Amino acid sequence: MRLTLDRTSSIPFYRQIAEQLREQIRSGELPPGTRLPPERRLAAMLGVNRTTVVSAYRELAAEGLIVGHVGRGTIVAEPQPSPQPLGSSVAWAQFFTPITTVMRDPLLYDTMVVSARPDVISFATGAPAPEFYPVETVRALLDEALHHEGQSLLQYCPTEGYPPLREAIAQYLRQHGARTTAAHVLVVSGSQQGLYLLARALLEPGDVVAVESPTYLGALHVFRAIGARFLPIPVDRHGMHVSVLEDMVQRRRPKLIYTLPTFQNPTGTTLSLERRQRLLDIAIRYQIPIIEDDPYSMLRYEGPALPSLLSLDTAGIVIYLSTVSKVLFPGFRVGWVVGPQPVIERLSTLKQLVDLDTNALAQWAVWAFLTRGLLDQHIERLRQAYPVRRDRMLSALEAYAADVLAWERPGGGLYLWCQLQDGLRARDLLPEAARHGVAFTPGESCFPDGGGAEFLRLNFTYPNPDQIEEGIKRLAQAIHTLRANRFGRDRTAVLARPLV
Amino acid sequence: MRLTLDRTSSIPFYRQIAEQLREQIRSGELPPGTRLPPERRLAAMLGVNRTTVVSAYRELAAEGLIVGHVGRGTIVAEPQPSPQPLGSSVAWAQFFTPITTVMRDPLLYDTMVVSARPDVISFATGAPAPEFYPVETVRALLDEALHHEGQSLLQYCPTEGYPPLREAIAQYLRQHGARTTAAHVLVVSGSQQGLYLLARALLEPGDVVAVESPTYLGALHVFRAIGARFLPIPVDRHGMHVSVLEDMVQRRRPKLIYTLPTFQNPTGTTLSLERRQRLLDIAIRYQIPIIEDDPYSMLRYEGPALPSLLSLDTAGIVIYLSTVSKVLFPGFRVGWVVGPQPVIERLSTLKQLVDLDTNALAQWAVWAFLTRGLLDQHIERLRQAYPVRRDRMLSALEAYAADVLAWERPGGGLYLWCQLQDGLRARDLLPEAARHGVAFTPGESCFPDGGGAEFLRLNFTYPNPDQIEEGIKRLAQAIHTLRANRFGRDRTAVLARPLV
Repeated sequence: MRLTLDRTSSIPFYRQIAEQLREQIRSGELPPGTRLPPERRLAAMLGVNRTTVVSAYRELAAEGLIVGHVGRGTIVAEPQPSPQPLGSSVAWAQFFTPITTVMRDPLLYDTMVVSARPDVISFATGAPAPEFYPVETVRALLDEALHHEGQSLLQYCPTEGYPPLREAIAQYLRQHGARTTAAHVLVVSGSQQGLYLLARALLEPGDVVAVESPTYLGALHVFRAIGARFLPIPVDRHGMHVSVLEDMVQRRRPKLIYTLPTFQNPTGTTLSLERRQRLLDIAIRYQIPIIEDDPYSMLRYEGPALPSLLSLDTAGIVIYLSTVSKVLFPGFRVGWVVGPQPVIERLSTLKQLVDLDTNALAQWAVWAFLTRGLLDQHIERLRQAYPVRRDRMLSALEAYAADVLAWERPGGGLYLWCQLQDGLRARDLLPEAARHGVAFTPGESCFPDGGGAEFLRLNFTYPNPDQIEEGIKRLAQAIHTLRANRFGRDRTAVLARPLV
Repeated sequence: MRLTLDRTSSIPFYRQIAEQLREQIRSGELPPGTRLPPERRLAAMLGVNRTTVVSAYRELAAEGLIVGHVGRGTIVAEPQPSPQPLGSSVAWAQFFTPITTVMRDPLLYDTMVVSARPDVISFATGAPAPEFYPVETVRALLDEALHHEGQSLLQYCPTEGYPPLREAIAQYLRQHGARTTAAHVLVVSGSQQGLYLLARALLEPGDVVAVESPTYLGALHVFRAIGARFLPIPVDRHGMHVSVLEDMVQRRRPKLIYTLPTFQNPTGTTLSLERRQRLLDIAIRYQIPIIEDDPYSMLRYEGPALPSLLSLDTAGIVIYLSTVSKVLFPGFRVGWVVGPQPVIERLSTLKQLVDLDTNALAQWAVWAFLTRGLLDQHIERLRQAYPVRRDRMLSALEAYAADVLAWERPGGGLYLWCQLQDGLRARDLLPEAARHGVAFTPGESCFPDGGGAEFLRLNFTYPNPDQIEEGIKRLAQAIHTLRANRFGRDRTAVLARPLV
């Protein structure tokens, strides 16, 4: 039996031990009947706690790979007659409703696969920097919560949310100028759930939704799955082109306006104050509810804060959506919808069907982050760290990719939006980038109506500064390679003349 | 300033302090500008830790009720100009889609309201005994999880579930005779989410679902919201009357069969082995998928275990649903759907729209409960405690209510199903019971097609044995009062003869 522990690895020792033993049992190196060393002895040999070995053995026992015999110690088990996994003789395809047949975007699937490779530097995610996750704070908070209120936090929670959290969210928004009370707040299992509930509550197949073009790709998926059609409104450096919306709204009569006015995903742009007012005027005049998706406004690195549409709203036509996923971490699955009471009541009826309620323990922790100043402290830290990463990305782009990419400098958020030059397409770049060990999100997935082939979205918060530098270098090489090949191959096809 | 601490209360001290101060500030007893005692002094006066007072002050400060001034201590704040909460000038009712207009059942709403009163003994819930929640185990597990794998558990999780948990669930089911692998398992945010996803994936408006009559009321709500119609199959003491299903299946061609074969909610009955086989035969012959909802089979108090439909299924026509909500506690919101791979793939596409993924930390903890024998240990404890409660309820019924109720003795699960005699109706009993300080679930809410007015469902796991005794006494008194009033009032109306 060979066992080596990597003391620099982030994989816990018990996992390292279990994995190596599992491998050796499966390969036959440790055949059935082999007696493993007693826990105490193995622990001494490896210089770890006995509980570490106990945990490793327990994991293997749970998988049926080893068995403990009184008096005989721990033995490698006989392989169980491997159960033939159950196939199905049912022609399932005929049973599914249309909503489930919406295909996953194959381009995004490829992106995810590349992005997950350990040798790849990924600019493709929408995740905050994991090394800043306040793990120890969460640990202390959950310990406190279970100590003080364990029983009630492990119970069902009201569908609308943990009451103190609803109040804390309302209070937070009031401090930012909105006139909200707890009754305007519905806690949801991540803001994706908020989007889904809103789409289900407000859209029927064929309804039109006005969206920025480009916009958040997850919203496009939800709206498409419901059968909605899009009214795409272009975006410039001041956000949604509200005058275009105004021109089109009479003819197309959208049922909803979906917008990310602040540090927009994917473009990073912010809707100007004047356009905010005008957008609200249009919504009120034509009675079209606005969904304001606002996960990024707390991540502002420079410039003055602009008021949210929610806080400018005098008519109760804005429904606001936010989350802790981008400012703390995504794992809690806690977001919130804020809006007029009739909306909150209907959404809550719907949420009761969808998942009854949201994890109360996670809600308690978010409440503590909000009311004890811990969230503000954490955001302060991110507002120090993220601009450094953004600037490192900007200077790397300047150094390596100025001839092949154009970009804007975002004042906040997670993303840099880039445009390939010379008619290169992001979907062609993806495999080349994968070969060079770098991943990004192809911009076309963010467009409601096709188009956008030349854009890519780069996240600058997930990789660390050195990875950013190296990743942009790789990306630039990939683009240069693509360009060289393309111009080598396609030179004669640049202009195709009609064959008359 | 008056402050008293109730040392026997389960409300933490800091909450008690905050609540009393809040009340006194709001009532004007502590007017704006009042200086509160320094934290250290108040702590000494009350005989609590300083951190307790700090937490209480913090909570009040977060609500804007008090402010800390350097040099002046903590002061009751000037009341903020109370923001006029935002009303809405939008005629929202016109915007909502039909799914949101499914009314909440007013009878259930009344039940919930009564059930929540602190002076009421509630037999209405579906919750396990809170005093058995393994709070300290959860505390230790979450601490371990965050210590070892904090970063990755606070990250997004694969939509299909935390991979080791999927494997552990498959393994658990294999040990109970099913031929499952991790690829057959989708982790969901509570089994309610599993039901919703299945209904969305498999039913369109107008489709027929065969259900037991009575059945789980939450399933009826989901199916109704999708626009499904019901094929109600009666239940006797051996579970669903499968021969009735057989007679009707050809004419009505249900799209799905939904069943709780083991310790059924609400009747407590278990489908016999012979009927299980016959149900599967029908499903396979007519190619009708079965949803087997199985939250209760682990809570078996006597008699032999019967194989699940999943483990008897040779054709891959069963989709299985379970959860830890009834055997551990509901707060984690972790359940699972197990079924043929095409089903799992479609559901997972749908789950990505609905909430992206399920809280990874909670999944880790469930994984640890399953693989370390902690779940089995816990269930062993419940299987000691719950029959005591059931028997206490049975003997109390015998002692106080034998003349007004009939009931069956369930071999497992959480519920006793009772029938009122003399044509009394549970909905009439509800307000009388509320006056007597006891709550139950009216049986009619569990029937797909009206009817069942004389039934009530009593939960025997949530109240403790003494509360059970007292609650049944109150219930019997309420029934006797109702009967006396009814017979006083209605005596002449027993038989209405045609007026010829």
